[in-house]
Amino acid sequence: MDYVYGPGKNHLFVPGPVNIPEPVIRAMNRNNEDYRSPAIPALTKTLLEDIKKIFKTTSGTPFLIPTTGTGAWESALTNTLSPGDRIISFLIGQFSLLWIDQQQRLKFNVDVVESDWGQGANLDVLASKLAADTAHTIKAICIVHNETATGVTNNLATVRGILDHYGHPALLLVDGVSSICALDFRMDEWGIDVALTGSQKALSLPTGMGIVCASPKALEASKTAKSVRVFFDWSDYLKFYKMGTYWPYTPSIQLLYGLRAALDLIFEEGLENVIARHKRLGKATRLAVEAWGLKNCTQKEEWFSDTVTAVRVPPQIDGSEVVRVAWKRYNLSLGLGLNKIAGKVFRIGHLGNVNELQLLGCLAGVEMILRDVGYPVKLGSGVGAAAAYLLNTTPFIPSRV
Amino acid sequence: MDYVYGPGKNHLFVPGPVNIPEPVIRAMNRNNEDYRSPAIPALTKTLLEDIKKIFKTTSGTPFLIPTTGTGAWESALTNTLSPGDRIISFLIGQFSLLWIDQQQRLKFNVDVVESDWGQGANLDVLASKLAADTAHTIKAICIVHNETATGVTNNLATVRGILDHYGHPALLLVDGVSSICALDFRMDEWGIDVALTGSQKALSLPTGMGIVCASPKALEASKTAKSVRVFFDWSDYLKFYKMGTYWPYTPSIQLLYGLRAALDLIFEEGLENVIARHKRLGKATRLAVEAWGLKNCTQKEEWFSDTVTAVRVPPQIDGSEVVRVAWKRYNLSLGLGLNKIAGKVFRIGHLGNVNELQLLGCLAGVEMILRDVGYPVKLGSGVGAAAAYLLNTTPFIPSRV
Amino acid sequence: MDYVYGPGKNHLFVPGPVNIPEPVIRAMNRNNEDYRSPAIPALTKTLLEDIKKIFKTTSGTPFLIPTTGTGAWESALTNTLSPGDRIISFLIGQFSLLWIDQQQRLKFNVDVVESDWGQGANLDVLASKLAADTAHTIKAICIVHNETATGVTNNLATVRGILDHYGHPALLLVDGVSSICALDFRMDEWGIDVALTGSQKALSLPTGMGIVCASPKALEASKTAKSVRVFFDWSDYLKFYKMGTYWPYTPSIQLLYGLRAALDLIFEEGLENVIARHKRLGKATRLAVEAWGLKNCTQKEEWFSDTVTAVRVPPQIDGSEVVRVAWKRYNLSLGLGLNKIAGKVFRIGHLGNVNELQLLGCLAGVEMILRDVGYPVKLGSGVGAAAAYLLNTTPFIPSRV
Amino acid sequence: MDYVYGPGKNHLFVPGPVNIPEPVIRAMNRNNEDYRSPAIPALTKTLLEDIKKIFKTTSGTPFLIPTTGTGAWESALTNTLSPGDRIISFLIGQFSLLWIDQQQRLKFNVDVVESDWGQGANLDVLASKLAADTAHTIKAICIVHNETATGVTNNLATVRGILDHYGHPALLLVDGVSSICALDFRMDEWGIDVALTGSQKALSLPTGMGIVCASPKALEASKTAKSVRVFFDWSDYLKFYKMGTYWPYTPSIQLLYGLRAALDLIFEEGLENVIARHKRLGKATRLAVEAWGLKNCTQKEEWFSDTVTAVRVPPQIDGSEVVRVAWKRYNLSLGLGLNKIAGKVFRIGHLGNVNELQLLGCLAGVEMILRDVGYPVKLGSGVGAAAAYLLNTTPFIPSRV
Repeated sequence: MDYVYGPGKNHLFVPGPVNIPEPVIRAMNRNNEDYRSPAIPALTKTLLEDIKKIFKTTSGTPFLIPTTGTGAWESALTNTLSPGDRIISFLIGQFSLLWIDQQQRLKFNVDVVESDWGQGANLDVLASKLAADTAHTIKAICIVHNETATGVTNNLATVRGILDHYGHPALLLVDGVSSICALDFRMDEWGIDVALTGSQKALSLPTGMGIVCASPKALEASKTAKSVRVFFDWSDYLKFYKMGTYWPYTPSIQLLYGLRAALDLIFEEGLENVIARHKRLGKATRLAVEAWGLKNCTQKEEWFSDTVTAVRVPPQIDGSEVVRVAWKRYNLSLGLGLNKIAGKVFRIGHLGNVNELQLLGCLAGVEMILRDVGYPVKLGSGVGAAAAYLLNTTPFIPSRV
Repeated sequence: MDYVYGPGKNHLFVPGPVNIPEPVIRAMNRNNEDYRSPAIPALTKTLLEDIKKIFKTTSGTPFLIPTTGTGAWESALTNTLSPGDRIISFLIGQFSLLWIDQQQRLKFNVDVVESDWGQGANLDVLASKLAADTAHTIKAICIVHNETATGVTNNLATVRGILDHYGHPALLLVDGVSSICALDFRMDEWGIDVALTGSQKALSLPTGMGIVCASPKALEASKTAKSVRVFFDWSDYLKFYKMGTYWPYTPSIQLLYGLRAALDLIFEEGLENVIARHKRLGKATRLAVEAWGLKNCTQKEEWFSDTVTAVRVPPQIDGSEVVRVAWKRYNLSLGLGLNKIAGKVFRIGHLGNVNELQLLGCLAGVEMILRDVGYPVKLGSGVGAAAAYLLNTTPFIPSRV
Repeated sequence: MDYVYGPGKNHLFVPGPVNIPEPVIRAMNRNNEDYRSPAIPALTKTLLEDIKKIFKTTSGTPFLIPTTGTGAWESALTNTLSPGDRIISFLIGQFSLLWIDQQQRLKFNVDVVESDWGQGANLDVLASKLAADTAHTIKAICIVHNETATGVTNNLATVRGILDHYGHPALLLVDGVSSICALDFRMDEWGIDVALTGSQKALSLPTGMGIVCASPKALEASKTAKSVRVFFDWSDYLKFYKMGTYWPYTPSIQLLYGLRAALDLIFEEGLENVIARHKRLGKATRLAVEAWGLKNCTQKEEWFSDTVTAVRVPPQIDGSEVVRVAWKRYNLSLGLGLNKIAGKVFRIGHLGNVNELQLLGCLAGVEMILRDVGYPVKLGSGVGAAAAYLLNTTPFIPSRV
Repeated sequence: MDYVYGPGKNHLFVPGPVNIPEPVIRAMNRNNEDYRSPAIPALTKTLLEDIKKIFKTTSGTPFLIPTTGTGAWESALTNTLSPGDRIISFLIGQFSLLWIDQQQRLKFNVDVVESDWGQGANLDVLASKLAADTAHTIKAICIVHNETATGVTNNLATVRGILDHYGHPALLLVDGVSSICALDFRMDEWGIDVALTGSQKALSLPTGMGIVCASPKALEASKTAKSVRVFFDWSDYLKFYKMGTYWPYTPSIQLLYGLRAALDLIFEEGLENVIARHKRLGKATRLAVEAWGLKNCTQKEEWFSDTVTAVRVPPQIDGSEVVRVAWKRYNLSLGLGLNKIAGKVFRIGHLGNVNELQLLGCLAGVEMILRDVGYPVKLGSGVGAAAAYLLNTTPFIPSRV
């Protein structure tokens, strides 16, 4: 039944899928239901309303699509753009690379702006391209808020600022897969036209729901976008929204109840507290990395990610071996380095429903593994550095005071 | 948490999503896991092997796609066909209609062969079209094995026979959503090129996995098919199959373990026994309908479906009211009539992990509801007729003898 | 893992343990917790308050003991009586017999008043014994409210009336195992001194919690009762109640959360509605038995039980074979005849979280089984008779109107 | 539903109830079943056989009683002894104290041998008492293997040696509540007559099953023991064992399946590996305590417990405050000091299904809490000391190699 059981809990620190809170696991522990009964639309209505709070949008229209992040990307692109449309897209790691690959295969004319893996999007290039585009041939800017492969967070407020500076009408399409509900994210304030995430990331659910939010401008664009689409077509959803039955095809009953429970927990903790918790855990992780004498793959502080840290290993160490030993000896799941940085980093995901002591247990494990693979870290050093920071910043749990 | 709780079990007799067996619910009751650990590929390998047994194929290649039946349709079409391709498609009810709508929106040249709702696909027309198509302009035949909206089962062996008779090379694409794992289905023997189903149907899982099986000929076609696709592109799967990591993007860990448990149960019962159980329950349902003096929406016995029965109601009765009362008074979930037959039928789904007494409870409920809505059925008549048949055909449960 | 899997749901119609509602299963699906944290006392406090509503007592003191009904009996007896104490106890079936056996082994002086199995307690004898006992040597009256082995409900109001008539101070100890939360039960109004039930009965939880409620008079008696006891001693509980930590030893965390969920459901449905539902299901069952031409083991209508029906089978039929076939062929769990009536009856439990269509499915099954074992029942006759009654008495589900 | 939700996992480090492995939670996530069906006896048979392996007995008879450890104590005593019997009992902490309290209230003549809390049983006194007891007035020796309140492990081999040395026939009754399945425990080899534990301890299940194993000599004693008992009477179990139905009253179906899953996991890991894991975690914990400059409540190394460590706090620190802050700020559950050592210690339970990184996370938390309450521990010091030890002793997980 369980293919490779290990004693104790699995320590899940990949940057997705992440740990599901027990109350959410409970809420999903259920039989199927008729999705055409009055109960499911009533439930769906609350979900659509509340998911907007997570995206910080009041004017956006959310879609809960039975798909993954990859499908959410496709939903964002095909509903707003037509084949041949010129788009600017930033390549800063494996996931932006994959999105660009999708954009190209979907026949858009992609203007790729590449950075070193470990750097953020080159926004100077964006500015110059927009400045030059007086004819407004650029139809969209595609950017990941947080590149999961390198642990780099782009500054979306700056992106919006540049667009506004040039009064450029390009749509702003944002991959918020490893950011939304964990990092500060403001769809309306930053003028994002399509924002998207996946259920298995900071919302701390199983995989299977791609969550896409479209601005009024994006919805308008969808009326004329010529990309061929059916499964991902927003118009089918909108038709059923109007009818009040919400679902053009069968949703996962379990994920709907799971999302309800997840949102309830997030609101109980407070979205700002959730974001602050991620900030604390991100900072603590980086302090541990520093204490170990290792480098963050992310090259500047302004890009540091509070949801995932890619740790550079010295040349004599194989980052993949770190991940292998973690799983085989300590029941710890870390993320591999991908593509260009395969073997050169390992990744610690610290997003979703996770707390301080879980992270410290992970960091203690990483110290042991580093020793196992031959890197002479001082045991306790990273944990101590992280703890020293957390000590003064970890709040009492509000419901327990 | 539960929006409209009712006492006792919900009696789930919609034709999908269907009842999940308790052992499968248990198997899915779990935290996320790293899908890049060695455990998940090892598990996936067994799933891909075993799902082929359900489709009765040895040469087919299965894809477990995080999507619904609608997405599985799109996967089947876009991987094998190019825009403008001529296809023959049979319209016999709401779900074949929706598939045809998708085919048209995907820009295929769809030659629609319509039947009365309640009849099977018009295969005479197929024969004459194939006979006329000496130039082989027809690239694919699209047909639902079982039309869920009307309870009509098409004869796929006949379809194959016609294709063979004319030596026509068109691909045979089959929607097996409400048939595979419940009705007799033989992918290889019937020369089906793409067969597909959804997890929430006879496999008795939650929604969220579109299961598509491609013949070698279909795989070959996918190399040249020009339909734009990324999320649904088989080539990404095939690349990861070759690497042995299997997943181009994140699967639902819960559905993988759930599918494992579901397959284990099916093999424990025996696939042929599962199919025989559906045959028994289908026949029992039809005998009840007859005893009530009502008509099956399906017009001839050769098309009777063993997974869903659409029951025609007399003109003075509203089929939708039957469904509403069922849910509000008896915690019974029945299927609505859709589109052309809205209000004229209600549907009883008898597929998936369900047994004789569950069905009899449902039939007893339908009798009461019919009385509630003003149809003078004799209470016990349908249950008695069904039971009389089941009495001699229900086997002892093998594991309990 | 599952030792004898059968397809579809198990139809659980033994008179305990009974079906657990899905929301309760979900609530118990959890890890252990520290029972000394502030959360568990806070939770326990609500449970103790709310369980009193189920017993209909305001002056009683409840104890939630990690034990079964047998242990609850022992708790009731040893806390209120001293070895050698004279008690009157009514023997009307297997469970009253077992309680009497316990009373004797606990060294009480038991005055057994026996009735035919199928009859209620002989209250005339009670009256005459009380009349004769001017010296008040009788310390307690022990009576089962509902004898689970025969489906006989005793009239407790009458018992109280007799006690009052003679102004007799004997304690009234009541086994409410298969009655409380299903039948009309009024601890305070009927002057019951100790009432008890088990979690796996009408509360619809797993086995493991014996629930005992003591009147002020019973608590007073416990101060001087000389029966040796530790695990079952109320005084340990009372000590911890006073401290506000509630538990003298470790409770089952899962059962506490389960009880909370169970009570929430009961209050959502309304306790009076729960009782009415049992009344309807009891009546429906008896009408089916009558339609089959079979006899109720219970000899007079005044004793008919709304939680369990023991059905007499004709001499040529073996009641145990009915139970065996039910399980092996139809995944239906019925109750065996016990002791004196072994083989002569089979039992249908219709208590707990069960609804009309579940019962009708069970009755349809019994009809088939009766035919399987050679009794010529007309198929549909019992279901029809039951449905005819339920048709006009089953209310809409309040939360769904 | 959850009274005091906190983000992330609860870190459960009380010495019971302990963490339940996910596969066990899954196995218990189920509806009730008829315990008189053939499935439950078949399951029970495997449990009784396999539980003996955990106790390391072949000649013992196990009883799975729906009760807690307190009830298991009562079962051990009342089945083997008669009121007035002289027994020797060692008082070394709160739990041995409670057992002695029970012994006295059950009317045995208890010869209490007290030690300082933090010391083991005074076996010199045992020797002298046995030497003096040539008349064999001592009927039993009662001893806890591991005192959960102080973290003291007694040497049972020595106890057996002393009994043998004097050829004394007293029964040896052992509380193995916080030892069996975690510490080296050998019922047969050490000539233990009754050994007992509770499901919520090292077996890592919910509370609710008292597990008692009786030697042939103990069974023999039970035939003449005059202590009044019914619920706890072994003879009822033995009667049902003989009949092959096993249960004199209703067991928890969920706990039976849970125990099956728990045993499967233990055997998969290997009982000796389980014990070795506890040894490693115990040692690691003590090294951390030492690094913090704190004292173990246990006064000598020979008594160090591998399942629970009671940590002495300096006089200016309140041990209870440590526990309070742990729960309120870090979602960490630690054990309070009890009775004589209330406030003077806090306890870390490291038993059950727990692994290295879970413990290190806990230890990191304790460091932060100690700072929170004013003790100047160097952050990372204890974790580092523990990790340095674990680094070389933590094996690869066998199923993952």
